[in-house]
Amino acid sequence: MRHLTEELEDLRKRLLEMGSLVETGIYHSVQSLVENDAQQAAIVWQNEAKINQLQIEIDELATRLLALEQPVAVDLRLITAAMKINTDLERMGDLAVNIVERSQSLRKHRLIKPSIDLPHLASLTETMVRNALDAFVNRDTELARGVLASDDAVDALRDTAYGELIRNMERDASSISQSVDLLLVARDLERIADHATNIAEGVLFLVEGVDVRHHATRPAQPQTP
Amino acid sequence: MRHLTEELEDLRKRLLEMGSLVETGIYHSVQSLVENDAQQAAIVWQNEAKINQLQIEIDELATRLLALEQPVAVDLRLITAAMKINTDLERMGDLAVNIVERSQSLRKHRLIKPSIDLPHLASLTETMVRNALDAFVNRDTELARGVLASDDAVDALRDTAYGELIRNMERDASSISQSVDLLLVARDLERIADHATNIAEGVLFLVEGVDVRHHATRPAQPQTP
Repeated sequence: MRHLTEELEDLRKRLLEMGSLVETGIYHSVQSLVENDAQQAAIVWQNEAKINQLQIEIDELATRLLALEQPVAVDLRLITAAMKINTDLERMGDLAVNIVERSQSLRKHRLIKPSIDLPHLASLTETMVRNALDAFVNRDTELARGVLASDDAVDALRDTAYGELIRNMERDASSISQSVDLLLVARDLERIADHATNIAEGVLFLVEGVDVRHHATRPAQPQTP
Repeated sequence: MRHLTEELEDLRKRLLEMGSLVETGIYHSVQSLVENDAQQAAIVWQNEAKINQLQIEIDELATRLLALEQPVAVDLRLITAAMKINTDLERMGDLAVNIVERSQSLRKHRLIKPSIDLPHLASLTETMVRNALDAFVNRDTELARGVLASDDAVDALRDTAYGELIRNMERDASSISQSVDLLLVARDLERIADHATNIAEGVLFLVEGVDVRHHATRPAQPQTP
């Protein structure tokens, strides 16, 4: 049997591979939409199949390490963190597929240029995914905190997009169906950013033992009106 | 130290407690919306705080069991399944809070009766959450398969709701902002159902060793047009 250090390195590598597939998946899902390009949609479907396969492999590897190596302390926390990251990455892949399905639905309508800046939102989200994974691999808490900060920027971009789309619909009823699709794409991108945020929170817990899950990124309970 | 069997029983109990909080949270989030009732919204916020606390406790308990008991085989799989269910339940709680926030946004508009059947969608989703948890606790694969089947019903209800809302918006531009809020609520309920589906898939894997994650609930890759 290989040494635990090698096995953990393998686990990290596979997560990075999965992260890279997710990142390019997000890019191509949004490009397939704005460029109305079925080839780019096909890349997302191919990535999705690989992501699903990696999810199963990573789960099996992590479970095997828990069973056979009986790791403790930092190694144990690393493995449980890897299992959570695995789930988050797989869900991100699903969301990229959602976006592709939405772009297929959009192709049915007359193509009007999307007035909202989806590529900007997508690019910010891709960076969050990459940085969250890099933060995990390098135990880089500064990078992880940067991801948490970016989540606010994504929420602001999404709100801008929602407002713009609602105004579009109010001005031109024939744009409603298309605008709803775009709105759901913006929502999917924001969900992807949430998953990247989950990963970053996991990194802070792993490295610093600080559980920021229910503080840093969520508003306090508002006063009942 | 307590016996592992007792510890696992404790883990199950806490997950059930969390599941019950999530279930009532979904109910009250949608009721707060349709009845325009801030009191019910407050219940969702209270549940959310308890859910977040339970998430941390369950994670700690599971990690402690992995470290100290060094479980193997079925016990190990049970604990890793519990950690995943924990994450799914916490995300469902977040989505119920989303719905409450959306209902606060809806209060700003003139109140028109929602034309879509959100309580039906919510009730189906609550049942999925309860059944998925019961399937986990009782290792009941039939119940788990029932949850997977319900996911299709939820998707169909969501599609009906989307279509109805888009027609509303096309008929009456003044309903657009409100219809968008309702559309996002339908989307949140469907995401909650997806999380229940994840739990049910986990139960099938736990009991039968069958990995249905990437078969039963997702469509095959379509042919590139």
